[in-house]
Amino acid sequence: MRNSQPSPLTLGEIVSRLGGELVGDPALQVRQVATLETAAPDTIAFFANERYLAQLRSTQAGAVIVGLPLRGTLDIAHIAAANPYAYFARVSALFNPPDTRAEGRHPAAVIDPRARIGAGVHFGPNAVIEADADVGDGCSIGAGSYVGPGAVIGAQGIIYPNVSIYRGCVIGRRVIIHSGAVIGADGFGIAMDDGRWLKVPQIGVVRIGDDVEIGANTTIDRGAIDDTVIEDGVKLDNQIQVGHNVRIGAHTAIAACVGIAGSSRIGRYCRIGGASGIAGHLSIADNVEISAHTLITKSITEAGTYTGAYPFESNRDWRRNAASLRSLAELASRVRVLEHELQLRKKGKT
Amino acid sequence: MRNSQPSPLTLGEIVSRLGGELVGDPALQVRQVATLETAAPDTIAFFANERYLAQLRSTQAGAVIVGLPLRGTLDIAHIAAANPYAYFARVSALFNPPDTRAEGRHPAAVIDPRARIGAGVHFGPNAVIEADADVGDGCSIGAGSYVGPGAVIGAQGIIYPNVSIYRGCVIGRRVIIHSGAVIGADGFGIAMDDGRWLKVPQIGVVRIGDDVEIGANTTIDRGAIDDTVIEDGVKLDNQIQVGHNVRIGAHTAIAACVGIAGSSRIGRYCRIGGASGIAGHLSIADNVEISAHTLITKSITEAGTYTGAYPFESNRDWRRNAASLRSLAELASRVRVLEHELQLRKKGKT
Amino acid sequence: MRNSQPSPLTLGEIVSRLGGELVGDPALQVRQVATLETAAPDTIAFFANERYLAQLRSTQAGAVIVGLPLRGTLDIAHIAAANPYAYFARVSALFNPPDTRAEGRHPAAVIDPRARIGAGVHFGPNAVIEADADVGDGCSIGAGSYVGPGAVIGAQGIIYPNVSIYRGCVIGRRVIIHSGAVIGADGFGIAMDDGRWLKVPQIGVVRIGDDVEIGANTTIDRGAIDDTVIEDGVKLDNQIQVGHNVRIGAHTAIAACVGIAGSSRIGRYCRIGGASGIAGHLSIADNVEISAHTLITKSITEAGTYTGAYPFESNRDWRRNAASLRSLAELASRVRVLEHELQLRKKGKT
Repeated sequence: MRNSQPSPLTLGEIVSRLGGELVGDPALQVRQVATLETAAPDTIAFFANERYLAQLRSTQAGAVIVGLPLRGTLDIAHIAAANPYAYFARVSALFNPPDTRAEGRHPAAVIDPRARIGAGVHFGPNAVIEADADVGDGCSIGAGSYVGPGAVIGAQGIIYPNVSIYRGCVIGRRVIIHSGAVIGADGFGIAMDDGRWLKVPQIGVVRIGDDVEIGANTTIDRGAIDDTVIEDGVKLDNQIQVGHNVRIGAHTAIAACVGIAGSSRIGRYCRIGGASGIAGHLSIADNVEISAHTLITKSITEAGTYTGAYPFESNRDWRRNAASLRSLAELASRVRVLEHELQLRKKGKT
Repeated sequence: MRNSQPSPLTLGEIVSRLGGELVGDPALQVRQVATLETAAPDTIAFFANERYLAQLRSTQAGAVIVGLPLRGTLDIAHIAAANPYAYFARVSALFNPPDTRAEGRHPAAVIDPRARIGAGVHFGPNAVIEADADVGDGCSIGAGSYVGPGAVIGAQGIIYPNVSIYRGCVIGRRVIIHSGAVIGADGFGIAMDDGRWLKVPQIGVVRIGDDVEIGANTTIDRGAIDDTVIEDGVKLDNQIQVGHNVRIGAHTAIAACVGIAGSSRIGRYCRIGGASGIAGHLSIADNVEISAHTLITKSITEAGTYTGAYPFESNRDWRRNAASLRSLAELASRVRVLEHELQLRKKGKT
Repeated sequence: MRNSQPSPLTLGEIVSRLGGELVGDPALQVRQVATLETAAPDTIAFFANERYLAQLRSTQAGAVIVGLPLRGTLDIAHIAAANPYAYFARVSALFNPPDTRAEGRHPAAVIDPRARIGAGVHFGPNAVIEADADVGDGCSIGAGSYVGPGAVIGAQGIIYPNVSIYRGCVIGRRVIIHSGAVIGADGFGIAMDDGRWLKVPQIGVVRIGDDVEIGANTTIDRGAIDDTVIEDGVKLDNQIQVGHNVRIGAHTAIAACVGIAGSSRIGRYCRIGGASGIAGHLSIADNVEISAHTLITKSITEAGTYTGAYPFESNRDWRRNAASLRSLAELASRVRVLEHELQLRKKGKT
């Protein structure tokens, strides 16, 4: 079920709102976005990945959004844009505005009278807002979500159901947090002492900038002493773990299941692939791209793409190669010996 | 604490209900299942893994379930079955039926009057059912779980506490969802535009077939445009991440901590080992087995087992071999040079 | 926001409570702990990692905690201790005692009258305690947390919001469980039978010892037949998955995102790095250290450090080396051939 049936727009209306070059009938109406593969004639699709060229040729869409080089090359109506995927995102937003929930406090929400609540806030059933928390104008706090004492949520935030935000964490404006995320749990600070682990109090908080999105079941730990910081515009997918005192630079995007160990600093505009890891106390430069399943064990000072995943094979091939990997250093020595022997022979001959 | 003390059954009663070949006294009573290692004389154990042969020899169990080849080879009572582990599962289900909760709506459940609620549904305290949701006959919705607007849960579903199901997701019959799972959060759809990420509306839903089980804290994202689909009989362990527009074929089983990136299609009857990953936009054939900690980066068209984990070693050995790995391509060139030189010499001699 | 402004202590008071050797003015007051980098003159920092030596030289802290070898070598006030990090943990605990919540049952908590509740327990709003559960003296049960039928929580436990504890699980004293953790969901027990997966009832529970801490969104499955056991003093970080029937030995510490497959036994005082995995049915000795991103596929019988992460490189280098890795076994054969040929030639010459 989608929000509701969107109203149709003509292609002419779309380009008048969003720009782009229209090739085709400006009066043609579309009602929704679609994929090339499953599009109906009253929808608009997009083409931004060469992989789907055959689908572009056979699509039933009424119109397609394409890059500038394809302008005029298609038989069907199309809008050419410099960045077709971003253009598509804007078209989709026209047809699919965010949920607009009626302002209001469900009677089963539990809001401490000492909390500060902005104008037009929606509270779902069983949302809990503790003392001295501050929830900004226009926020939506989902069912069963918990906002701890003194926590701050900036204006227009969307907190989905069953999110937990610990004491004192500070969240910027227009932040979206998905279900199951935990913001501000204690970092993993333990000191071995005479055969037992002592807990190190975690007295920092989590500070999250504006326009950040945090995926389902992602966890961001509070700082041990200073704070954990997520700068503006960062996008975190699901099931990411951010350790205490990490700083993630603005507009960095991190795919699902990544783990970032304590005190590491990630630059701005980085892209980190799924299930990668960053060891603790490292520094990663701006504009670094890290491939999926890669463990970063040293600081990275130059922009670029870094990779460290084992290439998969049939199990039979893997068994043979992985066995050889265990004696790789020895193999390298044997090659040195061979080179040396051949060198001696050459000299002997000359 | 187990549910309650199960009533005893005789071995004769068991084989009359479930089949299998009994060797031993049909009047012997057992009260519960057990492991070979910790079994008491009033329990029945099973043997399905050669690793535990010594335990089979020394078990105190009253009876044992074994494969057909062991029929008649044991001193103690035993039931031989073609598939002893499946037989064991059935025996255990006789002694341990699912929790039967009294039908009823806890007064602290919050159920929108526009929701459709089937017969005999149990709602735990603080369960939240939004408008237009549809909860089928005989479902159990745990404490604090959230069923979003228009979401559908088929008959006999068991939703454990603190599950979040977003707007419009459709779940089949007899589905079990464990605590902390999140169904239908937004997929990770972002488009870079002039230095900022634009959010791509995620307008599809999640469609889950019949007889699916979803583990604790697993997340399944809603589709970007079309839907994310989990077919009948799929079994997902804990902390799995399923990206938007993924399709998982019927009866595939996935171990914990696996991540599946967007738009990939997994076949039927696949088995995916723990903490593996599937990159985006791939297609995996039916009956593929993927080993633990393996990253699949290309489509797989043939059934078989695929592996890509780095073989672990002592840290000392790993340091030496991993260092050599960084110059492996160069080592291969040096071997080609050696081969070439030796070839020249051979020719020189001839 | 921190709990509240801590009262200052003099260095003399600190060493009189905690020991250590003070070099400097015992009347000097400090109010809080700090990092070397951001310390103000009314704070005390610590130095336990050579990496931060430059920060030690330039810190503005009023005093510093250092190891014994540095005693008397600094210009500023310092306390020398055999274990400076543990000493720091104790100093921080002086300034930052755990939250002390007023005893009391929030009116929106839902507590079954058949539950046993100790003295001085705090229940947050919407906490749910089922029949026959037993919550010990001085526990704090967070908002929206669920304690299933018959579950036991020992004295002084801190259960943060939105935790789920299933039926019958038994938790020791002074255990801390962070938000989103799920204790006692069903293990992944399925038996293939004639093209469908049969569910194997999971009838064991989870047993957790004293002084355990469990991170946010960590999942610990109940046993299939016998129980899953976490011994005293174990520290688990966030997003860890512990399979059914695992046993984790006392005082073992496990970093975030680790997965432990069913029936494995981890020794005492082990340290397991982030995102590592332990395959099923293995046994790991005491005092084993496992590096991050390592998959353990065989039992480990000797203490030591074990590693198996692929070393990361620039993507260009990785492509070349990873390609060679796929023919490593063949490369090793070619080296053997070369060695053999050269040996023949040597013999020929002699």
